[in-house]
Amino acid sequence: MKLWGGRFSENLNTLAARMNSSLAFDQRLAEVDIRGSKAWAKALAGAGILSQEELELLLQGLEKVADEFKGSKFVFQESDEDIHTAVERRLKEFIGPLAGKLHTGRSRNDQVATDFRLWMLETIPHLDGQLKELQGTLIERAERDMGALLPGYTHMQQAQPVLLSHWWLWQFWMLQRDRDRLMNLVEETSVLPLGCGALAGSSFPVDRFALATELGFRRPFPNSLDAVSDRDFAAGFLFWAALLGVHLSRLSEALIIYSSREFGFIRLSDAFSTGSSLMPQKKNPDLLELTRAQSGKLIGLLTGLLAVLKGLPSAYDKDLQEDKPAVFEAADRLADSLAVLSGLIATLEINAGRMRAAIDPQMMATDLADYLVRKGVPFRQAHEAVGAAVQKAEASGKPLSMLPLETWQEIHPAFESDILEAFSAEISVKNRVAYGGTAPQEVLEQLALARQVLG
Amino acid sequence: MKLWGGRFSENLNTLAARMNSSLAFDQRLAEVDIRGSKAWAKALAGAGILSQEELELLLQGLEKVADEFKGSKFVFQESDEDIHTAVERRLKEFIGPLAGKLHTGRSRNDQVATDFRLWMLETIPHLDGQLKELQGTLIERAERDMGALLPGYTHMQQAQPVLLSHWWLWQFWMLQRDRDRLMNLVEETSVLPLGCGALAGSSFPVDRFALATELGFRRPFPNSLDAVSDRDFAAGFLFWAALLGVHLSRLSEALIIYSSREFGFIRLSDAFSTGSSLMPQKKNPDLLELTRAQSGKLIGLLTGLLAVLKGLPSAYDKDLQEDKPAVFEAADRLADSLAVLSGLIATLEINAGRMRAAIDPQMMATDLADYLVRKGVPFRQAHEAVGAAVQKAEASGKPLSMLPLETWQEIHPAFESDILEAFSAEISVKNRVAYGGTAPQEVLEQLALARQVLG
Amino acid sequence: MKLWGGRFSENLNTLAARMNSSLAFDQRLAEVDIRGSKAWAKALAGAGILSQEELELLLQGLEKVADEFKGSKFVFQESDEDIHTAVERRLKEFIGPLAGKLHTGRSRNDQVATDFRLWMLETIPHLDGQLKELQGTLIERAERDMGALLPGYTHMQQAQPVLLSHWWLWQFWMLQRDRDRLMNLVEETSVLPLGCGALAGSSFPVDRFALATELGFRRPFPNSLDAVSDRDFAAGFLFWAALLGVHLSRLSEALIIYSSREFGFIRLSDAFSTGSSLMPQKKNPDLLELTRAQSGKLIGLLTGLLAVLKGLPSAYDKDLQEDKPAVFEAADRLADSLAVLSGLIATLEINAGRMRAAIDPQMMATDLADYLVRKGVPFRQAHEAVGAAVQKAEASGKPLSMLPLETWQEIHPAFESDILEAFSAEISVKNRVAYGGTAPQEVLEQLALARQVLG
Amino acid sequence: MKLWGGRFSENLNTLAARMNSSLAFDQRLAEVDIRGSKAWAKALAGAGILSQEELELLLQGLEKVADEFKGSKFVFQESDEDIHTAVERRLKEFIGPLAGKLHTGRSRNDQVATDFRLWMLETIPHLDGQLKELQGTLIERAERDMGALLPGYTHMQQAQPVLLSHWWLWQFWMLQRDRDRLMNLVEETSVLPLGCGALAGSSFPVDRFALATELGFRRPFPNSLDAVSDRDFAAGFLFWAALLGVHLSRLSEALIIYSSREFGFIRLSDAFSTGSSLMPQKKNPDLLELTRAQSGKLIGLLTGLLAVLKGLPSAYDKDLQEDKPAVFEAADRLADSLAVLSGLIATLEINAGRMRAAIDPQMMATDLADYLVRKGVPFRQAHEAVGAAVQKAEASGKPLSMLPLETWQEIHPAFESDILEAFSAEISVKNRVAYGGTAPQEVLEQLALARQVLG
Repeated sequence: MKLWGGRFSENLNTLAARMNSSLAFDQRLAEVDIRGSKAWAKALAGAGILSQEELELLLQGLEKVADEFKGSKFVFQESDEDIHTAVERRLKEFIGPLAGKLHTGRSRNDQVATDFRLWMLETIPHLDGQLKELQGTLIERAERDMGALLPGYTHMQQAQPVLLSHWWLWQFWMLQRDRDRLMNLVEETSVLPLGCGALAGSSFPVDRFALATELGFRRPFPNSLDAVSDRDFAAGFLFWAALLGVHLSRLSEALIIYSSREFGFIRLSDAFSTGSSLMPQKKNPDLLELTRAQSGKLIGLLTGLLAVLKGLPSAYDKDLQEDKPAVFEAADRLADSLAVLSGLIATLEINAGRMRAAIDPQMMATDLADYLVRKGVPFRQAHEAVGAAVQKAEASGKPLSMLPLETWQEIHPAFESDILEAFSAEISVKNRVAYGGTAPQEVLEQLALARQVLG
Repeated sequence: MKLWGGRFSENLNTLAARMNSSLAFDQRLAEVDIRGSKAWAKALAGAGILSQEELELLLQGLEKVADEFKGSKFVFQESDEDIHTAVERRLKEFIGPLAGKLHTGRSRNDQVATDFRLWMLETIPHLDGQLKELQGTLIERAERDMGALLPGYTHMQQAQPVLLSHWWLWQFWMLQRDRDRLMNLVEETSVLPLGCGALAGSSFPVDRFALATELGFRRPFPNSLDAVSDRDFAAGFLFWAALLGVHLSRLSEALIIYSSREFGFIRLSDAFSTGSSLMPQKKNPDLLELTRAQSGKLIGLLTGLLAVLKGLPSAYDKDLQEDKPAVFEAADRLADSLAVLSGLIATLEINAGRMRAAIDPQMMATDLADYLVRKGVPFRQAHEAVGAAVQKAEASGKPLSMLPLETWQEIHPAFESDILEAFSAEISVKNRVAYGGTAPQEVLEQLALARQVLG
Repeated sequence: MKLWGGRFSENLNTLAARMNSSLAFDQRLAEVDIRGSKAWAKALAGAGILSQEELELLLQGLEKVADEFKGSKFVFQESDEDIHTAVERRLKEFIGPLAGKLHTGRSRNDQVATDFRLWMLETIPHLDGQLKELQGTLIERAERDMGALLPGYTHMQQAQPVLLSHWWLWQFWMLQRDRDRLMNLVEETSVLPLGCGALAGSSFPVDRFALATELGFRRPFPNSLDAVSDRDFAAGFLFWAALLGVHLSRLSEALIIYSSREFGFIRLSDAFSTGSSLMPQKKNPDLLELTRAQSGKLIGLLTGLLAVLKGLPSAYDKDLQEDKPAVFEAADRLADSLAVLSGLIATLEINAGRMRAAIDPQMMATDLADYLVRKGVPFRQAHEAVGAAVQKAEASGKPLSMLPLETWQEIHPAFESDILEAFSAEISVKNRVAYGGTAPQEVLEQLALARQVLG
Repeated sequence: MKLWGGRFSENLNTLAARMNSSLAFDQRLAEVDIRGSKAWAKALAGAGILSQEELELLLQGLEKVADEFKGSKFVFQESDEDIHTAVERRLKEFIGPLAGKLHTGRSRNDQVATDFRLWMLETIPHLDGQLKELQGTLIERAERDMGALLPGYTHMQQAQPVLLSHWWLWQFWMLQRDRDRLMNLVEETSVLPLGCGALAGSSFPVDRFALATELGFRRPFPNSLDAVSDRDFAAGFLFWAALLGVHLSRLSEALIIYSSREFGFIRLSDAFSTGSSLMPQKKNPDLLELTRAQSGKLIGLLTGLLAVLKGLPSAYDKDLQEDKPAVFEAADRLADSLAVLSGLIATLEINAGRMRAAIDPQMMATDLADYLVRKGVPFRQAHEAVGAAVQKAEASGKPLSMLPLETWQEIHPAFESDILEAFSAEISVKNRVAYGGTAPQEVLEQLALARQVLG
């Protein structure tokens, strides 16, 4: 069934029909489409377009269609060009010509925009829940691994020691921003297009504020052209997805490197590792590679939709049909990734000994400079003095901590015998006491804050 | 001057130095860098690292450097590898070794993140002001052009008539979403990295909450690793820019088409048109083409930064340096576009006669269907009936409004002699009375709402 | 069945297994995978790893598996993690443990790279054929529509008249470049990875040159690390697809505008148009909008893969798995688009009268300037003179061709009474005689060249 | 000076003029613009439009303008809206109104397309030269480091040992593909637009084949609409750049990881390293991070141009102006990157001892399986047997090579006392004898081939 055709004398070319059809992806809107139709039927009744009896029949018919979808018994026909058509076709089979009244004053333009927003408003809480679960896993790791020292890196070079828990919490906060952004998206998505018709508004006096309330939207669109053409919420979702993807890629990359034999800081559980068809010894972090790679795909989905939207001149252009497959794919991929990462992180084993042993005395160079600062040396001079010491140590092939006191004092007279204390990674960490630093008591407070934010 | 080098025995290769330098773009951070340094000096004094006298000297020195920038008298040296280095170098020339105390407990990692955020917090209100100005222009047009009827398009085909003012307000609301998103960005940007050091936090007990207040941030970052690595705000800005760019491209595309000779709905002023070097008659909408094209560029800037961020494993990787040129370019381009579009729209002339004349009677086909619906015919049948009429009219080469009444009644007996009223574009528009529709009184209310939102 | 697992003590998490599986998309490689395996079996026999008898059994077993795929009788099992595993599993069911010899000296890394290349080498000729078909349609249109004059546009403004056939041939040449690029892709794809093992090469002395010949490759990779990691051909394919997509989007955009009521230059056949669920009169160019939109999607697929590839450090990283779904989707979409566009263009009707009538006398302004040039006036002055005439005509509200001769002579004395000839669009077109111009005899020659190139 | 304006009554708005101007970037076309103009003058003379004397004067005038550019003495004026205008304005100052004849039958549309192609044809050999230089460096490293064994990685996990020289040559071949693609680009770029006018061709009978020869193009465009609208060569260049960028990012990423303290395989020279403003010990691979990050930027440039090109309907739209800044930026960035990488790789020190020591006995697991295969065990069983051994070794906390012979024989009776030989990384490497493998004699042959390809 097509919802148009009266004016056409020739059928749509078969291949063109296939290309034009959106059923392959929009059937996932079945439930929200029916929900929207029920609300629309009520609005039509409220506007006097449908009698109470007609309304009842329509609602019952729609319920039957919904039941078929719930029970996976709905049978699509080749002529159903989209989910809206399929639902109306089936409705007509159930209740006859009355079904033809449902589309009064409504267009697929406002209908599909409404359906898609309803779907998104339903999906966001699920994704938020998964994000929360992953955050919970990170908090648990931060608690469980408290005390473990990790070399902190900048430029992939050892920089300063940090608590591993501090590192896990970093990931927590990154995801918290994703959750905040998701809440902004809810706000943005929650504006109702229904009742705006094809582009010019409806000539039937439906109460769109009541309709918004009925469907759980905050308010109706104040401009019908905007209502049917706006896909900011879809682009916003894809940006959210791409940025979350980037966050997960950074986490994944770090874990991949940490699980290399050369680093050896973590070991993935067998349940989240795979092997090689050729090399019997291999234990590969495939899942982490996939969660890393996914960010590329998500960037492409975002880019793609933005490029599609660019330059569209009308209130509705068919190009907008590209919005749903992209958003659905992004949502599905992230749902998988978040679940897998949560399981993977919960079950990985850390090797605290390897981490601690990896901390080279040079990592305390800043502490040595700070040592001089505390004795009144301007930081810039202190920095240079320690740099000179590093150079001497490297030239002599010794660890920095093995330089004799005389050498230190040659470099700067303010160095004294208490200098060795500065080489303790534990003391280094303990010293980072400013808010947000890696000192244990700060990290404990941070953990408390994170738990509170998580709710 | 380099802020490092103590440990190095060989100089940086010249070409490598050029590639490593960020001065070409980050000199634009001079003012905020100095502002940040002043606040940091105060924080160090508050933590007892600087005496009151040292603080005064530092502040005075920084003020002198700031004055040089204000007066465009600052002279960069080849060895200045970035703006932070240049400022500290000059400070040292003014106040001597004391300058070397300023960097105590601070790293360029937290410094540059702070500078960049300060710059963005300053820039956002300017862009918001420009958006507001363009919105104001759109409101003025909506007022000025009230009464003009425009063929409304979907699929670039005539769909239903709308008020031109309704069309202008569509653009208004699109931009309102951009402004809302900008406010979310302020929230996101307003978290302070300063005092987080290179990655592990500061070992000097600076009060980061006071520092945040001093610099106008809402709160300090609770995690030092996150503070130096987070570039969500930059990606968020580029997404905002790309989506705004897409909005402007849609507006531009429509105006380009409307200013073609074939449409002839608008005429750009000479002040916003250009000509051809070969064809003497040409009057080209180059500016609109540039504002359309720009969206492509902005999509590329967003894509580029997201791809840069993907997979970065450390708390700080030099890759992050790509953040600023992209954001600066996006901000500059949009500042130009918004101003140009505002002028162009304010000065274009509309041809209301052409618009009205372009409205084909077929555009009232939905009204004809609604006519039947009001007589009790289910919409779906009404749609088919009118479709059949359209086909007959086309076959006979007549306008739809010229079909004789008998033909209408053959098609559906409910058609009566009052059918001709349905062909009035004015009545069609007047009928779209549901909230958000194009009926004049609805558009007037919408206009009032828009004025109120604009503030 | 997994091709690894000996060293693992715990099963792969269910969700992780789903995410890790590539079967959903790589089953489309079944045929080429088996072809590759047959060739590999022969190579192993050639290297003395398999006896002739073993080879026969393997080939027969593989043939049986191939038959199952051909007959759509192959049944996947949940444990088949990819097509390679599925094929080997089934082979084992047919021929027992001997199947386990097939993977000797081969890894999925070289196997999948080979399969994917084989698939591409098979797919390219199909796409090339479709391109050729669309080119053929364009040539036919150029022939059929010979004589029709079209306003030529720059900046969407009328510029100079051209032959419609010249316009169709423009599209032809654009696609010719796509075909040329496709041939470069064949060259690039036709390098054989098989026999490179996981990354280090094979320790069995297989003859990779013979293997290349057997499978239709031009040569084997000279470096095993490169062989398994190279995805340039996939990125190249996606770029090819994106650029072709851009070409089709430009064509589509022009046709969409030309089929608007305001332009009215072309009319799509019903077989390639769709209607509206609300507005009975609508005849929408949905297919053209989809072929336009598709370019956005294709850009996203390219961007996505490039972002995936960025920064991969190993000889093989699982991230590479993202290559296939992107390439498959691009190929499928373009196959549909090319077929639909070919049908749509072949069946559209042109309205030569509307096109001719749309040509405003101003379009001959360049001819007027050329007229002066032929009388010895430097072009720049001629340009200014005609520009002044255009301004006068517009000020007086008259068409340019209605300016009295005196006005022309006031503007420039070289204008004489033969000026009116210059206003003929037919003469304007006839004058563009330089190679590549729109003069009819030039276009006929161009058409001959196009036919020759098409072969 | 503007090359148009005759028909305009009002000046271009100042900001609009700034936005419209392309001089900021296209001044870099000065030399090729003048070269193109000289050839055009000759063509006009050939067609009888210019007398020989006029031609001489024009050529001399153009030479003077060229000299000013060469000597950096050319002074731009605010009214020069692009390089073409600036050159013609200056020419007029030198030779008077005759300058106005130069633009006869030419438009900026064909002129700029020609200039841009000339620039590209000049630039490509430089970039090719730089690629060749980097390839030369890689060959030198392959020679110099011959004998060093590197753990080969897949999934960032140790896989099989390879020769470091084999690894360097991998990079060589990747770049060779970039060079091949560059040659395809030359072919594609080398088609001449000049003489196609604004869009419809030239009405003066210039010999475009002679013009092509004069300017070093292979042939003229056969279709004028195509000639002015085609930007495939620019998109192709940006794809080339993005893919090269991806290659360099993979190389950079590997070197960054190899230069971490935990891997410790290479050490960058001080000339290609930088330090930290806070941490005195830091020696950072900033340059490698920039060459890695750059790939993101390059992907964005490509995406941006493709999105710009999408949907352009006319023969020339101003949007095309975005082509040059993107291409120029890509070329500049790659020129820097290639030079820096060449220097960096030439001067880095390898730590062959660390590499060799990093090779864990497990890396020879495939060799152990191959050992069984040589004794007639089907590979799949051999793989499982060795997998079981790996699991036993890990469970007992011993290196794989320390498992007692009995254990091996329990796992599979075919293991015999010669098994220990299989644990030699040197023998493992020596065994990879198939073409393309890492066996020393194969790598030597590969090196010879590489040298030969390099020329």
